[in-house]
Amino acid sequence: MSGGDWPDIAGTIVEGVHHLPIRVYYEDTDFSGIVYHANYLKFAERSRSDFLRLVGIHHSEILELDPPLAFAIQKMDMEFLAPARIDDLLEVESRYITARGARLEIEQVIKRDGEPIWRAIVKAACIDTDGRPRRLTAAMLEALGPHVAAASHPR
Amino acid sequence: MSGGDWPDIAGTIVEGVHHLPIRVYYEDTDFSGIVYHANYLKFAERSRSDFLRLVGIHHSEILELDPPLAFAIQKMDMEFLAPARIDDLLEVESRYITARGARLEIEQVIKRDGEPIWRAIVKAACIDTDGRPRRLTAAMLEALGPHVAAASHPR
Amino acid sequence: MSGGDWPDIAGTIVEGVHHLPIRVYYEDTDFSGIVYHANYLKFAERSRSDFLRLVGIHHSEILELDPPLAFAIQKMDMEFLAPARIDDLLEVESRYITARGARLEIEQVIKRDGEPIWRAIVKAACIDTDGRPRRLTAAMLEALGPHVAAASHPR
Amino acid sequence: MSGGDWPDIAGTIVEGVHHLPIRVYYEDTDFSGIVYHANYLKFAERSRSDFLRLVGIHHSEILELDPPLAFAIQKMDMEFLAPARIDDLLEVESRYITARGARLEIEQVIKRDGEPIWRAIVKAACIDTDGRPRRLTAAMLEALGPHVAAASHPR
Repeated sequence: MSGGDWPDIAGTIVEGVHHLPIRVYYEDTDFSGIVYHANYLKFAERSRSDFLRLVGIHHSEILELDPPLAFAIQKMDMEFLAPARIDDLLEVESRYITARGARLEIEQVIKRDGEPIWRAIVKAACIDTDGRPRRLTAAMLEALGPHVAAASHPR
Repeated sequence: MSGGDWPDIAGTIVEGVHHLPIRVYYEDTDFSGIVYHANYLKFAERSRSDFLRLVGIHHSEILELDPPLAFAIQKMDMEFLAPARIDDLLEVESRYITARGARLEIEQVIKRDGEPIWRAIVKAACIDTDGRPRRLTAAMLEALGPHVAAASHPR
Repeated sequence: MSGGDWPDIAGTIVEGVHHLPIRVYYEDTDFSGIVYHANYLKFAERSRSDFLRLVGIHHSEILELDPPLAFAIQKMDMEFLAPARIDDLLEVESRYITARGARLEIEQVIKRDGEPIWRAIVKAACIDTDGRPRRLTAAMLEALGPHVAAASHPR
Repeated sequence: MSGGDWPDIAGTIVEGVHHLPIRVYYEDTDFSGIVYHANYLKFAERSRSDFLRLVGIHHSEILELDPPLAFAIQKMDMEFLAPARIDDLLEVESRYITARGARLEIEQVIKRDGEPIWRAIVKAACIDTDGRPRRLTAAMLEALGPHVAAASHPR
């Protein structure tokens, strides 16, 4: 679906960086008054998904390919720099820095008022339903290429 | 925080109904391929919170009042009409139908392409930190009043 | 998998009532200091699933039947009676009160120190992957029958 | 609360390693059929919390100290080795490897049938409610000391 009356719903890509606004709701916080640490990974995943959506790669469509494909996280190194709180308006910034063979590498930062509060390097792989790595398809590379420094050339 | 470059981030109120767009992400689905049933409650809560935000009632501010106040759900009756799936763009519609004494009553529908897929009646109360019901403040009633059929008059 | 060294991991059924202990962790709470309302539905679902597991009905197995089957919630009426807090040890009690045609009805209570803090009536249906209601199989009725007041006779 | 009739509810510490059984429920999976990546962090946090609980350190109690204290994650490096699925019975193993000054360092592995499927190094800090690092208290060091290789001596 397109976004219709909500033009910003998938964020925006500016010079290779995806920007997604995230509001902190009740569900995101814990009893210590701040955002529960695992929920930053949800915010980050929303931005990675919307980046792919904006360049035309859809999770539901690549699961219909032959063989069916999906992306799986393999490694993630994170720093928690400052806590976010209820009602905060955050912005996730995501940059695909590698798209080569079966591998994707993404740099992500979550900011509040322009200040980083969370940072991660994410290594993901394109896999089939048996979990085996599969080369990114030509269509994926064509879609991602213009936004990625180190991309394979689609063949 | 205001929403800055993202004007739609808190949705919009039209004739007493709050509309909030919700994208279905990985985190919202379960292995059966559809949205996990408890996650519709999160979508609904985001809309109730944004409705209050747009009329000027903030969770963090009312917790600073003397006595500190919060809203607690007391009763919720729900119907699950059709499943939502990954990548769907949904819209939550929320209508505050009662705001009287300590009580709030809200009617909520989640739609996809204009068709209801989930529906609920929510009864909430304004409470203090001991969990005792407390009358909605004059400021709350003034903020909500114009949007609610059955509101107490602020005094 | 069986539970091996953890005999209590799936709770226990006593006279038709399933009892499942639930510890409240960080992830379950929100900034207001109590359990986030939608998370009681997760606790309740764990008990419904473990009830089925103990009588021999497994989500992953019924998805392998021809046609593949699953259970979907259709209606849920809930009362939130008292808040739970971090470190609380709760107990979910679930009773399957109807298992007939395609329909399941379950009564659920969450207790702390023997006192109810949440209560729900859940109406679920056995469905195929197109979402159409399908009669509970003979094997399901045989497994559930001894624990349910109003069960169809397996044929 | 103690655990009463559920002796295994907080897992068990054997030679400095905490073991916690985790059942994979609907809520933990996503539409790709496996456990959603952020949910391993929840499983890991449950084990860290239960380790502290078993040695007598309770989140709610340390928030009542003067000054109020809490633990915050600062850094987390993770590897996702194999996917977990619905109904799986997993085991989290946690080892506190450092407890010194304000710092805690924890090694965590999640296993299925004895095979690691997820692994992390977690760096956490004891903080006050302004987020400033605070030395672990003598009581904390006394409780953790016997289980930690590199612990400060309580003073």
